[in-house]
Amino acid sequence: MGTFREEGEHWWHVHDLRVRYADTDRMDMVYHGTYAAYLEAARVEMLRDAGWVYAEMESDGILLPVVQLNMTYKRPGRYDAVLEVWSHVTAPPTSKLSLVCEVRSQGGELLVRGEVTLVFVDRATGKPRRAPQGFTEALNLHHLIR
Amino acid sequence: MGTFREEGEHWWHVHDLRVRYADTDRMDMVYHGTYAAYLEAARVEMLRDAGWVYAEMESDGILLPVVQLNMTYKRPGRYDAVLEVWSHVTAPPTSKLSLVCEVRSQGGELLVRGEVTLVFVDRATGKPRRAPQGFTEALNLHHLIR
Amino acid sequence: MGTFREEGEHWWHVHDLRVRYADTDRMDMVYHGTYAAYLEAARVEMLRDAGWVYAEMESDGILLPVVQLNMTYKRPGRYDAVLEVWSHVTAPPTSKLSLVCEVRSQGGELLVRGEVTLVFVDRATGKPRRAPQGFTEALNLHHLIR
Amino acid sequence: MGTFREEGEHWWHVHDLRVRYADTDRMDMVYHGTYAAYLEAARVEMLRDAGWVYAEMESDGILLPVVQLNMTYKRPGRYDAVLEVWSHVTAPPTSKLSLVCEVRSQGGELLVRGEVTLVFVDRATGKPRRAPQGFTEALNLHHLIR
Repeated sequence: MGTFREEGEHWWHVHDLRVRYADTDRMDMVYHGTYAAYLEAARVEMLRDAGWVYAEMESDGILLPVVQLNMTYKRPGRYDAVLEVWSHVTAPPTSKLSLVCEVRSQGGELLVRGEVTLVFVDRATGKPRRAPQGFTEALNLHHLIR
Repeated sequence: MGTFREEGEHWWHVHDLRVRYADTDRMDMVYHGTYAAYLEAARVEMLRDAGWVYAEMESDGILLPVVQLNMTYKRPGRYDAVLEVWSHVTAPPTSKLSLVCEVRSQGGELLVRGEVTLVFVDRATGKPRRAPQGFTEALNLHHLIR
Repeated sequence: MGTFREEGEHWWHVHDLRVRYADTDRMDMVYHGTYAAYLEAARVEMLRDAGWVYAEMESDGILLPVVQLNMTYKRPGRYDAVLEVWSHVTAPPTSKLSLVCEVRSQGGELLVRGEVTLVFVDRATGKPRRAPQGFTEALNLHHLIR
Repeated sequence: MGTFREEGEHWWHVHDLRVRYADTDRMDMVYHGTYAAYLEAARVEMLRDAGWVYAEMESDGILLPVVQLNMTYKRPGRYDAVLEVWSHVTAPPTSKLSLVCEVRSQGGELLVRGEVTLVFVDRATGKPRRAPQGFTEALNLHHLIR
């Protein structure tokens, strides 16, 4: 669950999450690998809020594995903080789906910037396929593609 | 991979593993939930060294989920330490497999004591079933049941 | 964040959380070790909703590590499900804090039952100490101890 | 622990690790975020085998957090497989340390390619600093920089 927010001329989906003890490391910050799960959780909520349930798409035989993940760490995320994950899609989905995500503190500071590319895969054949019907429309309806 | 070691009148399987940064938390110790993965890794190596590959059993349609896990934390595990996970089976396997595990420092200090119970499940039916043929024999051959 | 709910003659704190992809394993269920983080997240929210911020207690030099964790797995938790973690305290806190937790499906099925014992530790000395002033009162105010 | 191997005109450090159940997800592959921990484990072993213990550097007040992590996923990593993580450094360390890592199957297939940049930080001041004395020499001694 999250909200759609306009910033500048653009719309983002914003998902809030609380940093758990399990997410931290001995450097007293969120372990850098943990953000992969944060971005994924936010992405799934973005789709849900746009009317698209990722779990149902998997049940329908379409997988969406990550093929590229770039993360730039600007500031540490801290235990018990509520972080905001801002996401939008960067191009009309083809067989690929590309997003930009920003993990921000509630004060608006940028902690981590992520670029994620996923590919639609037919589970039966294991081959890439186009985004399913209605997917792009759902995202467009909420102005999440640019 | 590990070794079989006699202690007192008994035999254990001992698996060594290195504590990773990802395993720690901000209390500068191994996160308490991480030990579930350590015990599981050691258990799988115990079976492998006894001649039983867990992954192949799954391929053959037999799953072995955990149904009970008790962990007592005595001393913290530290980053970059090599920990020894000592395991043995506590009763002849039926549809259940019960183990005791001790996570020890290389100096022999007890860090965590674990008791784990798993159940053999037929993947096709989802029902419990007896331990597969040869399983108990493999463990007995290495004196791992008592 | 969560809610306080009466059930039978007792009160529980109930915290909802969504199963993430990262939480699952190849058995297509929540990895059994993941529940340690779920119980911890719920416990922290229980304290927060009772007016006690765990992170602030750590800043004040009081740690609360887990010394015993028992988990019984009844039914699998599934990807994308919203799970409810029901928690209450089982005895007046001394230097120890003991809780019972139930992870339930939204349909009310019991998935996992957990018993957790933690100990208050003075960070400066590393020694156990009594629960800090006001802690027990906060829990009592919400009828969470029994 | 690992080995140094020459490939083409270059040297890599190769660290083997076994995929744990906890590392997998419901897509029956290694969860994409898990590779951050794999790369980190391999990096620490590369340094150790070059004579540089990362944990001791932290004790000496020098931290080395990740500031950039790019991962490209080519093929899935599978449960129980032994994966090889091949690493080398891509430029003489300044205040930054940049590596390329390849996660390969034992058959030599490329599964994941990673590029990691870390920065040396003085714990006392929180400021970036140069690589500590002897660090670059240790890597050079094993031909790991190019």
